Amino acid sequence: MTPDPVQRLVVELAKLPGIGEKTAQRLAFHILKAPKEYARDLSRAIQEVVEKVRLCSTCCALTENDPCPLCLDPRRDGKVLCVVEGVSDQIAVERTREFKGRYHVLHGVLSPLEGIGPEQLRVKELLSRLGSGAVEEVIVATNTDVEGEVTALYLTKLIKPLGIRVTRIAQGVPMGGDLEYADQVTLARALSGRREM
Amino acid sequence: MTPDPVQRLVVELAKLPGIGEKTAQRLAFHILKAPKEYARDLSRAIQEVVEKVRLCSTCCALTENDPCPLCLDPRRDGKVLCVVEGVSDQIAVERTREFKGRYHVLHGVLSPLEGIGPEQLRVKELLSRLGSGAVEEVIVATNTDVEGEVTALYLTKLIKPLGIRVTRIAQGVPMGGDLEYADQVTLARALSGRREM
Repeated sequence: MTPDPVQRLVVELAKLPGIGEKTAQRLAFHILKAPKEYARDLSRAIQEVVEKVRLCSTCCALTENDPCPLCLDPRRDGKVLCVVEGVSDQIAVERTREFKGRYHVLHGVLSPLEGIGPEQLRVKELLSRLGSGAVEEVIVATNTDVEGEVTALYLTKLIKPLGIRVTRIAQGVPMGGDLEYADQVTLARALSGRREM
Repeated sequence: MTPDPVQRLVVELAKLPGIGEKTAQRLAFHILKAPKEYARDLSRAIQEVVEKVRLCSTCCALTENDPCPLCLDPRRDGKVLCVVEGVSDQIAVERTREFKGRYHVLHGVLSPLEGIGPEQLRVKELLSRLGSGAVEEVIVATNTDVEGEVTALYLTKLIKPLGIRVTRIAQGVPMGGDLEYADQVTLARALSGRREM
């Protein structure tokens, strides 16, 4: 009963993650109700993002210009490399303002169930960066779930033989956390990873 | 740190209802990761929806061609008019396959708090339709919340003097409902609206 263009838009919107058909319909009606400039701006933004944004050939982060500003920044320490799963993780680490080194984005994690092996990740690019000899430490900052841990182990086995130090972000009780409610594994890791006061 | 085109897309996506900045970022990254055709299709669908879809000059529903297919359909009963708040309500009523008359979409409800008066709704169009004398009954199918009820009362006061029957959709215990858990108002309405078995 709804006109074809509305239906087509609903179908396209419903392909987005976490957007079901009902939500897609609500979004489509919102786009229709909003001033026409909004639809123009939104559709242009979508097109521009795929036209202008690509991966940095060095660190595989999203960028308009290759290499990316972060790879070009001389103030960043090229001796330390932080390996993350995705761009949002890179943003999260960068937001801490604690890390002054450079990044490498894997664009995924090893997941045999989903058919994602090392070839699907940016591991080759990482190894060729390490080959230059400039990097002294690789911080593996993948998630602390099963896939992230497996990926961290895999990378360690690849990188350690190159004589480069491989470290893993600390796992333990989060800030403001309550020991009583921490799960066993987290608490066990917090104990084994204890530090001198 | 994210490239400008990504940031622009996040800003535009975050203007959609129910989409916060975090979700907008996730959607933007999804669009970037997906095959390029998806971004093209999505941006085209957004543009087409505002270019091709307009309101039917008769019933104010969304349509590609004016008048809309439903208004042109000779099998629909022009003597009964169902007044709904929005297009999604029209879809909901149509889905019941119980209604064979025609529709009128108000595109909103009276809401003094949000500054929405009768001029912001398609009330003028409704009255001019009723002026033709063909309509014998108006079913007011606005929501059963405060704004919907107020709008129903307002329309009744406008339409009844024209000698047209005005009815309201029944309010009562929903199908599969439990009397024990029905609120007082619903149950009171169910009682006062009781029907002969």
